[in-house]
Amino acid sequence: MIKRVYLDNAATTPLDAAVLEAMLPYMKDEFGNPSSIHSYGRKTKGAIESARKQIANFLNAKPSEIIFTSGGTESDNMAIIGSVVDLGVKHIITSPIEHHAVIHTVEEICRKENLSYSLVKLTSNGHVDLQNLEELLSKNEKCLVTLMHANNEIGNVLDINAVANLCEKYGALFHSDTVQTMGHFPIDVQKTKVHFLTCGAHKFHGPKGVGFLYKSEKIKLHPLIHGGSQERNLRGGTENLYGIIGMAKALEIAYTEMNEHVKHIQEIKEYMIKRLQTTIPEIEFSGDYCGRSLYTVLNVSFPPSAHNEMLLFNLDINGVAASGGSACSSGSNKGSHVLEAIGANPLRSNVRFSFSKYTLKEEIDFAMEKICLVLELAPVKPNH
Amino acid sequence: MIKRVYLDNAATTPLDAAVLEAMLPYMKDEFGNPSSIHSYGRKTKGAIESARKQIANFLNAKPSEIIFTSGGTESDNMAIIGSVVDLGVKHIITSPIEHHAVIHTVEEICRKENLSYSLVKLTSNGHVDLQNLEELLSKNEKCLVTLMHANNEIGNVLDINAVANLCEKYGALFHSDTVQTMGHFPIDVQKTKVHFLTCGAHKFHGPKGVGFLYKSEKIKLHPLIHGGSQERNLRGGTENLYGIIGMAKALEIAYTEMNEHVKHIQEIKEYMIKRLQTTIPEIEFSGDYCGRSLYTVLNVSFPPSAHNEMLLFNLDINGVAASGGSACSSGSNKGSHVLEAIGANPLRSNVRFSFSKYTLKEEIDFAMEKICLVLELAPVKPNH
Repeated sequence: MIKRVYLDNAATTPLDAAVLEAMLPYMKDEFGNPSSIHSYGRKTKGAIESARKQIANFLNAKPSEIIFTSGGTESDNMAIIGSVVDLGVKHIITSPIEHHAVIHTVEEICRKENLSYSLVKLTSNGHVDLQNLEELLSKNEKCLVTLMHANNEIGNVLDINAVANLCEKYGALFHSDTVQTMGHFPIDVQKTKVHFLTCGAHKFHGPKGVGFLYKSEKIKLHPLIHGGSQERNLRGGTENLYGIIGMAKALEIAYTEMNEHVKHIQEIKEYMIKRLQTTIPEIEFSGDYCGRSLYTVLNVSFPPSAHNEMLLFNLDINGVAASGGSACSSGSNKGSHVLEAIGANPLRSNVRFSFSKYTLKEEIDFAMEKICLVLELAPVKPNH
Repeated sequence: MIKRVYLDNAATTPLDAAVLEAMLPYMKDEFGNPSSIHSYGRKTKGAIESARKQIANFLNAKPSEIIFTSGGTESDNMAIIGSVVDLGVKHIITSPIEHHAVIHTVEEICRKENLSYSLVKLTSNGHVDLQNLEELLSKNEKCLVTLMHANNEIGNVLDINAVANLCEKYGALFHSDTVQTMGHFPIDVQKTKVHFLTCGAHKFHGPKGVGFLYKSEKIKLHPLIHGGSQERNLRGGTENLYGIIGMAKALEIAYTEMNEHVKHIQEIKEYMIKRLQTTIPEIEFSGDYCGRSLYTVLNVSFPPSAHNEMLLFNLDINGVAASGGSACSSGSNKGSHVLEAIGANPLRSNVRFSFSKYTLKEEIDFAMEKICLVLELAPVKPNH
């Protein structure tokens, strides 16, 4: 019998048991500092380099292009700050719906270095307006374009190849925050001409506190964090050994089982859409939810109601964990900058439900039952 | 029967089984993103805030003064870069025997911001010359003093209170890299007037990839890593949840059992000193090894010998894991800047043996047997 359901997988995912299994030997017997040259260190150094090679293979990249970091946020910082400080970028083009790890970094580095940045326009369903992007590229020199592959709140997926081609045409650097898509969509850096990609392992059933930056070998950066010669002198600090091992294992599982995960989660998403539409005729969904959209994310726009103000709170009380926007800003109880940017109706109430390979149809039924309870609606029975 | 011994605990320490035990629930059932406001997130947020409170208590600090990071190196970077960028520091005073996390950060920020820095003189046994420090402080305005509490290669311990008092007298900021002493020496920030302390959990049987910066509440910094509102807006990125839980548990064990650890490890160190002196009359030890010295570190200077060149390598082959200097630079096979700075005789060969609460006398006997084997000396039997 289901007592609570976790529908907030865009915020974080539970660790896969097989990932924990892979990490444990390095939390017990194999504990050497990878920089030590004795047997304990060589063993863990070898494990880290194997993980790097494995991750690089999935992206069709070179091992030297993978830099291990503490997560997606640090990776975004490294790409954006490095582009300005080391690579002579003079203008940044980003969007109003980026993650705070990108927006705040762009704001800070532009303030410090006295640079300007542009926010690309969005289409009516929340996609990046490629025509406007091209205009911005043609009007500015030495640009960095930083646009996320999939939006964490509304799920819209960028046409990453089209953006990469535009950046190439105008000689711009291209960073894509792929935190929501890494392990969920295949990415081949030989086909997608991107300079930087970012990853946080905990978004695909890997550990928290670890991630990587993919940096094209054409790009020469200085470290963001100075210290020892780890990561080919690009990132000081003793490596998060088990984190790296776990991340490689999680990515291996994600790539090996991607087709079945996509099929399962897409079905879950469509099932929830259908059940919501049947139950609440005035229901709407944000973004391009049945077009270029992340199969893991469904941003639901509930019609105006007296129950809306306490909606998330009451869902939580009743055992349904979902999010009002980005988890990373929800703690501060600020409104979502993404929903504002796409012109969401403030009289309606938005809830992000996000799914994983572990989400069951029965959990959606449970959530629907609780939604009806909270909104005081007559429940519509599932029709499996 | 002992087959190999780990005498490189200044590089990293094995995870305490009780620490792993404390981490596991957060790697299994309690996986919520601490920034999520639903029950999963509140649970992990609570755990993180309890850890912060516990750690702050050990240092007699306020919880708001503890900022969780990815480790000692990031913490050092945050203190040093923040001092220059946010706090108007115009000159940095450091020493030639700091860790690369400090030296390289000082070099980089001074290069970028066009500032100067001074290296304080050392006394003949490798301590910071306090008279010279005072001269430097009196000659420079708006100084940051960054001096490590205990040296990771030779074990010398700084008179941290004397330095703190000098800094106060001259209105300087004081950062101490306490990576080697956190959990090994008690530190009370109400008595020691320091502005920044740094910690890497894996140096006291905690997890790798996590640490903290103690930042006095008087100090207002901007983040080094921009993003979400984590760590009171001071460090973006989803928290290394299990890392933080493990670090607090490791520090709890370290503080609770500190007296017995000190007694045990000090005995191990003295035992090895005695056995080396009995076996190799020309043996010497670097730094103030029986004075103000870290009980966990013994830097041995072997007399000139044809065997020296392959000494570490042959010890490793024979199952003795030790270090030639700092693990963080040993991978690059460069000579130690610390040994050079204290004027170590290049004809002699230095090996750092470093101990933990798990090190046994029998392991020292094993190491001595192998040292004799490698140096082709007649073994002197232990006299327990």
